[in-house]
Amino acid sequence: MADIIQPRVLKGFRDFLPQAEMERATLIEALTATFRSFGFVPIDTPALEYAEILLGKAGGETEKQVYRFNDKGGRDVALRFDLTVPLARFMAEHVGELYLPFKRYHLAKVWRGENTQRGRYREFMQCDFDIVGADTASADFDILATIAAAMKALGVPSASINVNHRGVFNRFLAKAGIADKSVEALRIVDKLSKIGADETRRQLAELAGENAADEVLEFIRGGESFAATLERMTTIAGGPNPDSDRLGEIFAMADACGLASSIKLSPSITRGLDYYTGVVFETFIDEIPEIGSVCSGGRYNDLASLYTKQRLPGVGASVGLDRLLAALEAIGKATKPAGYTRVLVVNTEATLGAEYQGAGAALRAAGLACEVFPETKKTGQQYAYAEQKGARFALLQGLEEKARGVWLLRNLAERTNIEYSSLPAVIVAVLESDQ
Amino acid sequence: MADIIQPRVLKGFRDFLPQAEMERATLIEALTATFRSFGFVPIDTPALEYAEILLGKAGGETEKQVYRFNDKGGRDVALRFDLTVPLARFMAEHVGELYLPFKRYHLAKVWRGENTQRGRYREFMQCDFDIVGADTASADFDILATIAAAMKALGVPSASINVNHRGVFNRFLAKAGIADKSVEALRIVDKLSKIGADETRRQLAELAGENAADEVLEFIRGGESFAATLERMTTIAGGPNPDSDRLGEIFAMADACGLASSIKLSPSITRGLDYYTGVVFETFIDEIPEIGSVCSGGRYNDLASLYTKQRLPGVGASVGLDRLLAALEAIGKATKPAGYTRVLVVNTEATLGAEYQGAGAALRAAGLACEVFPETKKTGQQYAYAEQKGARFALLQGLEEKARGVWLLRNLAERTNIEYSSLPAVIVAVLESDQ
Repeated sequence: MADIIQPRVLKGFRDFLPQAEMERATLIEALTATFRSFGFVPIDTPALEYAEILLGKAGGETEKQVYRFNDKGGRDVALRFDLTVPLARFMAEHVGELYLPFKRYHLAKVWRGENTQRGRYREFMQCDFDIVGADTASADFDILATIAAAMKALGVPSASINVNHRGVFNRFLAKAGIADKSVEALRIVDKLSKIGADETRRQLAELAGENAADEVLEFIRGGESFAATLERMTTIAGGPNPDSDRLGEIFAMADACGLASSIKLSPSITRGLDYYTGVVFETFIDEIPEIGSVCSGGRYNDLASLYTKQRLPGVGASVGLDRLLAALEAIGKATKPAGYTRVLVVNTEATLGAEYQGAGAALRAAGLACEVFPETKKTGQQYAYAEQKGARFALLQGLEEKARGVWLLRNLAERTNIEYSSLPAVIVAVLESDQ
Repeated sequence: MADIIQPRVLKGFRDFLPQAEMERATLIEALTATFRSFGFVPIDTPALEYAEILLGKAGGETEKQVYRFNDKGGRDVALRFDLTVPLARFMAEHVGELYLPFKRYHLAKVWRGENTQRGRYREFMQCDFDIVGADTASADFDILATIAAAMKALGVPSASINVNHRGVFNRFLAKAGIADKSVEALRIVDKLSKIGADETRRQLAELAGENAADEVLEFIRGGESFAATLERMTTIAGGPNPDSDRLGEIFAMADACGLASSIKLSPSITRGLDYYTGVVFETFIDEIPEIGSVCSGGRYNDLASLYTKQRLPGVGASVGLDRLLAALEAIGKATKPAGYTRVLVVNTEATLGAEYQGAGAALRAAGLACEVFPETKKTGQQYAYAEQKGARFALLQGLEEKARGVWLLRNLAERTNIEYSSLPAVIVAVLESDQ
């Protein structure tokens, strides 16, 4: 035998064992069902694209992290590092084949050569949903309502969707005479929850002077109701304007949908990316806000300008799956199925293999997930296996039971066997055990 | 504005637009439900692995096709080209954390730099399911029964799972005195359905002489019942042996599960790969066998010998998703949802945005997938959008209806509107329309 190759994965990459993968599958199924209930439809794009297309808009940091190489045909290619750039390319290429507004979700892996010392993964699943082709409060609100519905579907008792509008903030900065420093000011404010009010004030003062710093801090002060905060922000920013009206419309929709307590106006949220032009938002699970936003996004006024002259405004959000899973685990709401098996047919007699398989087929035909243990082993080992797979019942037939035409149904938790005269009787008993 | 970058994907790569992606999602959901009903659990592995690990066993052809490069840390890495090698590495690495027999399914993308002129894709989704750690007829049969259940779940009216056993074939070759030419003989026989009996005979005669060619052709002759074929094969191969007994056991299980007409003994099936050591099988949809096998696989006696000294026998199958989708389309069994939306809330009055969103929330709370058209547009355009998304109903409220507190529910196919006095009444009407 040749030397053994040490089995291992690359740093920053992960295997998902069944327990973790089932947990992830359950989460994805809940998110997918929520997206579909709002009329979002799925798309998929290639993992590998022309580097020119993926990196057209990207800055230095992104370029450093991307997996890029020449393929065997000499093409300069790269693995996608997010799902936003592929969506932009997709929309530019296919807009004529699609109906607008276009509501899509996309769950897929992306790759970034992140520094793994910071606990980052180099391969992770991204989950994005967007509405492209409509610039309205209703589209903005759709995204927020979808987030709220997703949190509810996942069993999160209470979540806060913190919303702001870039436009209102920019109007305020213009009125305060620091419009030319808006990008830097936005970046400083965006770090408020991380660096604290004092450090934020210090950095703002350094950027724009003491007075401007105080004005900014007054503007971003939160903690009041949506309506009160909106009124204060609007006044400080110079009075009602289309952007503050947009926020008002969104709040009226939230109120009409019973979401007034979840959707909060938070003038300090700005999102770091220059990309956003309208509403921006972050989502916190109230029991564990310190884990950070589990779903963030905002409005952009031109998605695909790199690839088409057609203007495509949109609004969308991205779910941080790894963080969301960690948060659900922390608050005890993670669904961790041990397996999908309801009944294990125990294999004690080599000569009864066909009977066991026939029983398995009969149970499955009745809608019961069922597996036949594939070899004769001690029943204790088979019971242990059944419990590992999450089965509640074991079905047994030895030669003596076979001669009498009966089956034993074992409740694995209670360690009790009940004899049934037929498989239909077994099926009824298992189905009734759920009620 | 800078120059536009031409939006395009790499040759051999594909975008999936919603129609195609929903069709694929429906197929994957049916397969996943089937796997789970047999107790298979999901895993996932990285798309990118050490090239040494992925290519350890691969021959020249595979190596030529793989996407391989040096990452920024100088590691020699490659994109996975199948899900079998990653499973082998996974089992070697994690066997201590798993329970055996280990039944897993894995649906994921793989990449091969295939010649696209042959209609091959360079990125495609693979779907594998395997049972590792048991070498029994019951495990072999589990895979075959899962294939049969999957075909049924997909609405395939009639499918043939053609089974053979490498061991019986090898015993026959030994008896015919051409054991040393078994690999070549297997490869020639494997092409029977493609090259025809005459050419098969010619190639076999060239390899092993006229007499041996005739013997092989007699051995692989099919068309009889499982039992009759098994008896003939067993006799020609020198009498009963553990491998022919295995086939007999499998047939008894098929008979007990009502699958005797689907699982056929087909002595000409050998599968090209040296990898298989026991049963091998291919699955044909009877209405369109010419499209080729939609699900193939077999038994291997040592999955992970490259990465561990622990012997891990297994049996498994791979579904050809692209081919299966094409076959389902050809026989009119493809499920092509236009969308998931049941009701579109039509947006005709800018001042009623909150009412429309409130209605959408109420319908979704009753379990009805519902979207609110996000901007005011002509109703004709909104109806057209609703039909594109597969919605059967549109819900309308103008200022006049708002004043009276009523809603109009439009049946889009019948082009009729019915007035309802409340949203609960609308919900009941939509729910009843399904019955």
